[in-house]
Amino acid sequence: MKRLAFRRLSFAALMLTVLAAASAAQDASRPASTNVPNAEYPRVHPDLRVTFRVSAPEAKKVQILPAPRVSNGLGDGPYDMVKDDKGFWTVTIPPAQPGLHNYYVVVDGFASNDPGSEAFPGYGMHISAVEVPDPKGDFYAVRGVPHGEVRIRWYFSKTTDAWRRALVYLPPGYEKGAARYPVLYLQHGSGEDETSWTRQGRVNFILDNLIAAGKAKPMIVVMENGMVAARPGAPKPPEKVQGILLQATPPPPAPSPSPSAPAASPAPAKPAALRGNEAFGDMVVDDLIPMIDSTFRTRTDGKNRAIAGLSMGAGQACQIGLTHLDMFAYIGSFSGVLRDFDAQTSFGGAFKDAAAFNAKVKLLWFGAGKREERFSTASKMATETLTKAGVKAIFFETPFGHEWQGWRYDLLDFAPRLFK
Amino acid sequence: MKRLAFRRLSFAALMLTVLAAASAAQDASRPASTNVPNAEYPRVHPDLRVTFRVSAPEAKKVQILPAPRVSNGLGDGPYDMVKDDKGFWTVTIPPAQPGLHNYYVVVDGFASNDPGSEAFPGYGMHISAVEVPDPKGDFYAVRGVPHGEVRIRWYFSKTTDAWRRALVYLPPGYEKGAARYPVLYLQHGSGEDETSWTRQGRVNFILDNLIAAGKAKPMIVVMENGMVAARPGAPKPPEKVQGILLQATPPPPAPSPSPSAPAASPAPAKPAALRGNEAFGDMVVDDLIPMIDSTFRTRTDGKNRAIAGLSMGAGQACQIGLTHLDMFAYIGSFSGVLRDFDAQTSFGGAFKDAAAFNAKVKLLWFGAGKREERFSTASKMATETLTKAGVKAIFFETPFGHEWQGWRYDLLDFAPRLFK
Repeated sequence: MKRLAFRRLSFAALMLTVLAAASAAQDASRPASTNVPNAEYPRVHPDLRVTFRVSAPEAKKVQILPAPRVSNGLGDGPYDMVKDDKGFWTVTIPPAQPGLHNYYVVVDGFASNDPGSEAFPGYGMHISAVEVPDPKGDFYAVRGVPHGEVRIRWYFSKTTDAWRRALVYLPPGYEKGAARYPVLYLQHGSGEDETSWTRQGRVNFILDNLIAAGKAKPMIVVMENGMVAARPGAPKPPEKVQGILLQATPPPPAPSPSPSAPAASPAPAKPAALRGNEAFGDMVVDDLIPMIDSTFRTRTDGKNRAIAGLSMGAGQACQIGLTHLDMFAYIGSFSGVLRDFDAQTSFGGAFKDAAAFNAKVKLLWFGAGKREERFSTASKMATETLTKAGVKAIFFETPFGHEWQGWRYDLLDFAPRLFK
Repeated sequence: MKRLAFRRLSFAALMLTVLAAASAAQDASRPASTNVPNAEYPRVHPDLRVTFRVSAPEAKKVQILPAPRVSNGLGDGPYDMVKDDKGFWTVTIPPAQPGLHNYYVVVDGFASNDPGSEAFPGYGMHISAVEVPDPKGDFYAVRGVPHGEVRIRWYFSKTTDAWRRALVYLPPGYEKGAARYPVLYLQHGSGEDETSWTRQGRVNFILDNLIAAGKAKPMIVVMENGMVAARPGAPKPPEKVQGILLQATPPPPAPSPSPSAPAASPAPAKPAALRGNEAFGDMVVDDLIPMIDSTFRTRTDGKNRAIAGLSMGAGQACQIGLTHLDMFAYIGSFSGVLRDFDAQTSFGGAFKDAAAFNAKVKLLWFGAGKREERFSTASKMATETLTKAGVKAIFFETPFGHEWQGWRYDLLDFAPRLFK
């Protein structure tokens, strides 16, 4: 009897706790930090569930579709939304992983944006994203430390015969001092642009915080647009160049917004897309670096220059860095994919003489996430192959998928290793 | 008989011409400059018709809806799209006005973005826009002239108790020289943000080109976020403060993406929204200007400081400028709306002593477009009222609506008048 009463009490207490928790979660949910002003949805709950809501009064079917579906911190989806009598569609999804997650709202087959979220360059469009807080995410928060400056610099590129722009992070104190700084060239992924490392990656806050803590050397970071070949009408880059996957970001699963792209023109002797990726490398070496070195107070020797990138940008960083060993002593691949990798022949035989390579390259760094298996496996295997061949290389793993949260953590590990 | 043959010939020739023109227009259409990479649609024809196309296989009804509907250079719309057997919906609209035009794609009542277009901060969201070329638009093109630099500067604002960012245009030559420069504070409209004057307004190119031509003095331009009160949960600003409309941009016609915003809390003694707009003014005067003057090589007297803004920002510029006459000798209202305007009492009686006002304020400038009648009428009437009261004021009219093309032309007229 006593025990039963206790049981009843505890059941009632449990129910009350559950209800209170549910109610508290409901009450404690907050608009995501990536919402546009005044948008109440999407909302993030304390347990990291996310509630989405959109208005589509006459629609038959509305879904939230994470991008990419595989390895997105929102889960695979798609998530069917439920309509109320006012024409609003709502869904609350299970607890998400921390980080910035891209997604589509799909309304009767139309894959587009959530009007409540900011749109970021990604997946070849300006796509919605929701930021889910990370309890360990202080390293990319705007904090009470000295802040560097990001400059938008226009310059003329002879290689591409066009005015282009670079985003340039200058560390705190640059403006008032006279010191010269080392430079990291840092590239985005396929379908993104030169603003992605600041907008999605929060590179400026990561560097501000690392520099304030004395964990990274003050450095300049240069970001340019790697989609040189991917202008309207240009053919898509090939999947593989010299053993490295260039187009690593999966294409959007939604129907293409460019239904009637002109048929590919006959293949030239040298594929146009390869020209495009080569053009990007030439542009970095012939136009961008000289402009940066003549505009800012940089250290101009290879020991003070690094190159890194994510996904497609990882391929570009390896391609440019490993074929210009005198120019870059630090090379970083964030979620790149190496295929048919051969320590003897890949990258023009850069690794053939391991001792010579190790003397020149201070850091060859491969990072990938547990939840993006093919990137993780390929990066781990490349590191092992290189290590066996006597080449010094580091493999770093995050718990994340093919998303920005992993690349923020990559930078957190990579940047402190530079220029030491 | 001869005449009939001639008629037949001319009719046939006419048809051929029409067909040839239509065919040429079809062939000569090009992806808009605002398209994301590889997006073939929207396309602009030589006669400025625009063809939109999106994929929405299961939708019942798809439309292009210009925003704002009244005075948008795309016309009023909405434009019904027609579905093909592959699920693509297409419409070609009549020749548009030149300029950057916001629009929604509305799919079964869901108003969102065109995946083919870039998204810009506007209408309280990140909204699609299409750029229609202007034959006289060289003044905002990126050209072969020296380019200034836009800097993204983070700073702490005591007024708002938060880290905030300003975008700062520095004229060509700033970096290498030692000169001090006058400063223009330039504000966006309601629902936009501190990036709008560079992204939509192309302020950096307009200044680069004017400075290169010797038509404007080299100056610094500072852009901040005027939506201080409009953060999630904050009440909306009141429509009218001291005779000036602050919320001048029409709200989006689409269903609100924030259906269940919390009910407004009981009105405090001093309305929270007024606090918000006052907070913006306080922030500019107490935090932003001191930060700018201590960070950059500025001229710090009122004769070397200007303030201007568009729509809601016009109200803010007038409110701040006209209540701080010692701080700003140049004041610009782009598409503002003055209501119940009184030369004796408005703005704390700033105009009461016309001679004193004219001695302090070198330029009071009102601009508006023919196609945004209530803004144009109000601005014209304010200028007339002031002129009658002995206050020097200028009215400038563009042929455009409540859109960025008008504000680009406003700046083209306004900037050369500054700091002379």
